[in-house]
Amino acid sequence: METIIMGGGIGATVVSNKQVVLRDYVTGVPNESDLVITSTTVDLRVPARSMTVLVKNLYLSCDPYMRNRMRKPNPWSSATAQSFIPGKCISGFGVSKVIDSGNPDYREGDLLWGAVGWEEYSVITPIPNLHFKILHTDVPLSYYTGILGMPGMTAYAGFYEVCSPKKGETVFVSAASGAVGQLVGQFAKMMGCYVVGSAGSKEKVDLLKNKLGFDDAFNYKEEKDLTVALKRCFPQGIDIYFENVGGKMLDAVILNMRPHGRIAACGMISQYNLENPEGVYNLSLITYKRIRIEGFTVFDYFEKYSEFLEFVVPYMREGKITYVEDVADGLESAPAALVGLFHGKNVGKQLVAVSRDL
Amino acid sequence: METIIMGGGIGATVVSNKQVVLRDYVTGVPNESDLVITSTTVDLRVPARSMTVLVKNLYLSCDPYMRNRMRKPNPWSSATAQSFIPGKCISGFGVSKVIDSGNPDYREGDLLWGAVGWEEYSVITPIPNLHFKILHTDVPLSYYTGILGMPGMTAYAGFYEVCSPKKGETVFVSAASGAVGQLVGQFAKMMGCYVVGSAGSKEKVDLLKNKLGFDDAFNYKEEKDLTVALKRCFPQGIDIYFENVGGKMLDAVILNMRPHGRIAACGMISQYNLENPEGVYNLSLITYKRIRIEGFTVFDYFEKYSEFLEFVVPYMREGKITYVEDVADGLESAPAALVGLFHGKNVGKQLVAVSRDL
Repeated sequence: METIIMGGGIGATVVSNKQVVLRDYVTGVPNESDLVITSTTVDLRVPARSMTVLVKNLYLSCDPYMRNRMRKPNPWSSATAQSFIPGKCISGFGVSKVIDSGNPDYREGDLLWGAVGWEEYSVITPIPNLHFKILHTDVPLSYYTGILGMPGMTAYAGFYEVCSPKKGETVFVSAASGAVGQLVGQFAKMMGCYVVGSAGSKEKVDLLKNKLGFDDAFNYKEEKDLTVALKRCFPQGIDIYFENVGGKMLDAVILNMRPHGRIAACGMISQYNLENPEGVYNLSLITYKRIRIEGFTVFDYFEKYSEFLEFVVPYMREGKITYVEDVADGLESAPAALVGLFHGKNVGKQLVAVSRDL
Repeated sequence: METIIMGGGIGATVVSNKQVVLRDYVTGVPNESDLVITSTTVDLRVPARSMTVLVKNLYLSCDPYMRNRMRKPNPWSSATAQSFIPGKCISGFGVSKVIDSGNPDYREGDLLWGAVGWEEYSVITPIPNLHFKILHTDVPLSYYTGILGMPGMTAYAGFYEVCSPKKGETVFVSAASGAVGQLVGQFAKMMGCYVVGSAGSKEKVDLLKNKLGFDDAFNYKEEKDLTVALKRCFPQGIDIYFENVGGKMLDAVILNMRPHGRIAACGMISQYNLENPEGVYNLSLITYKRIRIEGFTVFDYFEKYSEFLEFVVPYMREGKITYVEDVADGLESAPAALVGLFHGKNVGKQLVAVSRDL
């Protein structure tokens, strides 16, 4: 993705291209200094019939899974996220506009979202289920980093496919004001579930209760005992847990799960910065309680992306679904925005607006 | 179940009745002295139309879940096994013969298996899916504590329903020579899977490899690093883990699981004696690996018991399935037999022959 064509021929249109580069593999909590802004150049033209596309990146998505890509690869992580390469431009999901195309499926001016470099311009080879042409443009384009992009599809697949929800069930969502959590809560309410969310600040808790329609919410940092907090919110127990954080919260949830409860393990952000992950101690209860814990990733569900859009776009247009974004402006702000995610600084979906200039 | 009718009328046939009584709630590793043999009396007659049945217990089943019933109840365990009552006769699964019946569905001489007291005679009120009439008597009756009883049904439901096995997949079974594990391994071989088991002695490992048809087996007590042991046995990873032990083994398995692997959590015997359970540290990998961990108990599957018998009895008669039992003789040996289970003393299904006198 960081391929740069150093144009030199007649009519070459080489421009400067700022990039976000990983300094070195990260241990512990990432710092802004782990990411460096550098500048290189890129040719805005791509060879005809090369199948590649030169895009200008408009929005970049800051996602928790990217922390795992900052980690040094280890022999046991072959099935996990592929590590970034130190000294090279990092990559992620973004919203982009086609500047030049050597691919018959894309032409100048097309908008797309999918995997791109964290840079002003990227040369990509579009891959099905990794790059998607944007068809609905009557919504904010930035939404394709969130509700209409990977996080939206994650919430949709995770809740409807993995959680097996039923009307009237109780649903707990951690990191509930985040890119995925805020949607899971709204989907669950639409299904007639009782929904409680946890988040890490009063502002986020207020957002959950007052804007995103959660029945209840709590600030996990202000609870002495998460088990007691969950018991207070769910006196009859939890049917569904949408797991975004892991660690102590998971232990507290297991104690509060009802028989035949389901846990969709979307991610465990509380563990990503730890060199030695926390233990989970209550797992032996899953037998008697018949609990199902299921890990999933959105990549297994992208064939349902059109179905998802048909489902979600009407709700959005009718104002029945809300989406809260936290936008950082300019590629220079990208390191702080991404690192902030692991300190819980973002309120809503964190993204970077690289350029609002269509 | 410990109801004792103190008969005193004309023709009353009151006899002595030895029982196994829980001395007090158990913390830590159970000792033989936690169980006491006492003697009371029982009337061998039950009132007509009382719906109760007086049975003579022939075989009693020693099962790991019974450890949890020795524990003091706590507010978080409502969904777990019901605790035994200190000073009272404990209960479990057994094979019994009807001596007298006030229930139209049972008559003198009938054989049944199901929930009974740990005593010579029990008065029971038969309950569907908790008591089963024995129809096939051309097999050892003791098998109804094992392959044809609760453990057999557990292996059947756990493997075929929870593990979603496919031909050619790799299967790992812990506590593999135990009541359930030895059957899971044989079922998996019948399906065309590659099967490895772990156990706690050379004798058990030899049994797995030489008698029960496992492709490979290892003694977990002799392995420095369980993760490395599993990597050696499954260079390409594990598709299915039939979980009987929990703790460190579960962590090692998660590291070795293939994408979309399944873990059927039948029990976690390594944790039952610990006041503070071990942590499981690798759970965050289940997201990227898309691992499903599912707790189950046999009680949700007993409606399939007839189907299970139709499946397993022909294989047994043809000698295509083997079952290894470890039989303790006499009710006096019951405390040692049950406690021995938590020290891994049993080789094969542990049971107590209370009486072989039909």
